[in-house]
Amino acid sequence: MQILQVKKQLVLTSRLEDLGHLPLKALTSETGELFVAMDPVGTKDGDWVFTIANSAARDAAGDKRLLTDLTVGGIIDDWQPKQK
Amino acid sequence: MQILQVKKQLVLTSRLEDLGHLPLKALTSETGELFVAMDPVGTKDGDWVFTIANSAARDAAGDKRLLTDLTVGGIIDDWQPKQK
Amino acid sequence: MQILQVKKQLVLTSRLEDLGHLPLKALTSETGELFVAMDPVGTKDGDWVFTIANSAARDAAGDKRLLTDLTVGGIIDDWQPKQK
Amino acid sequence: MQILQVKKQLVLTSRLEDLGHLPLKALTSETGELFVAMDPVGTKDGDWVFTIANSAARDAAGDKRLLTDLTVGGIIDDWQPKQK
Amino acid sequence: MQILQVKKQLVLTSRLEDLGHLPLKALTSETGELFVAMDPVGTKDGDWVFTIANSAARDAAGDKRLLTDLTVGGIIDDWQPKQK
Repeated sequence: MQILQVKKQLVLTSRLEDLGHLPLKALTSETGELFVAMDPVGTKDGDWVFTIANSAARDAAGDKRLLTDLTVGGIIDDWQPKQK
Repeated sequence: MQILQVKKQLVLTSRLEDLGHLPLKALTSETGELFVAMDPVGTKDGDWVFTIANSAARDAAGDKRLLTDLTVGGIIDDWQPKQK
Repeated sequence: MQILQVKKQLVLTSRLEDLGHLPLKALTSETGELFVAMDPVGTKDGDWVFTIANSAARDAAGDKRLLTDLTVGGIIDDWQPKQK
Repeated sequence: MQILQVKKQLVLTSRLEDLGHLPLKALTSETGELFVAMDPVGTKDGDWVFTIANSAARDAAGDKRLLTDLTVGGIIDDWQPKQK
Repeated sequence: MQILQVKKQLVLTSRLEDLGHLPLKALTSETGELFVAMDPVGTKDGDWVFTIANSAARDAAGDKRLLTDLTVGGIIDDWQPKQK
């Protein structure tokens, strides 16, 4: 799993149907790498979270059929990033 | 998932049969990394999209048997890349 | 698999239910990359461990339904990191 | 998927049985990263190809039991690499 | 797949049961990245090998239940690394 910070919710014009109804969030790592994850936890911008990848990401989103490879697993309490 | 920009459609001379009929697009990340994804959404060159990897990529392409590990999931509205 | 050093246990405020009861640890590689892994082995901060990724990570955590993509597989005896 | 250039066929002394009879090729990305892929397409050294990873790689090799995580999917016509 | 050089066998103090009886080897890439793989081939330190990742790694280890995401697939004859 990875530790990432929530940046903003994505607004999509065209999208596949099986993405479901969870918000898609843009997140960055401490080193600035950019990711997109499904958010079943209800995070706010600025929250530090950990994310779950690949097959476990689909279960984490609540339905094996959902089209995701990265899902927020929880909000980390009081995370102190190094490179800030 | 990742945020990538569509660059161009690939033209293939030899190819496997189970790739199906969706176009294959070359895409780059904000930092210049190069990827190839199947495109069931109908993107145009220059569009910013998010892509879905691994097992979910096959479902995203519409058929579990399709040979893909990366598929376009949707077009992002009004994305402002940092490194441009 | 990767060789990582255990840094600290994560404290979570909101989290998904199917994460189970194993502790989640923050770990870093020799080059400073940050990861989160489930810990069924009972590591202490500072231990050098190897981690197992993806589908094998779920079995390593003891239950295929657990939401993890990285699990500690064992503690390495007397590991001498290069970049320290 | 990735865009890689075929460098040479690997010659193996000891190997697992379930690798089958397809050639294993060494390939590099535009940035010089080194990979090994199964080649069911019949590429020549110097060809630019795209490769398929993980579970789809096994189907791409023609048999789900084959031991591969990367398989050549097709030859790209007239690819112009940037960093050369 | 990747091309890696075998460095040494790992000695473990605590470990999960389903790791089986194959040795775990530390390996490095030409660029110095560090990995751990199961070795069903019987490599010696210094051998250049190719490794198989993820689900195929478990089959490569000889048993789908083994806890591995990276397994040695064969020894490469006469490999000439660039960065040495």
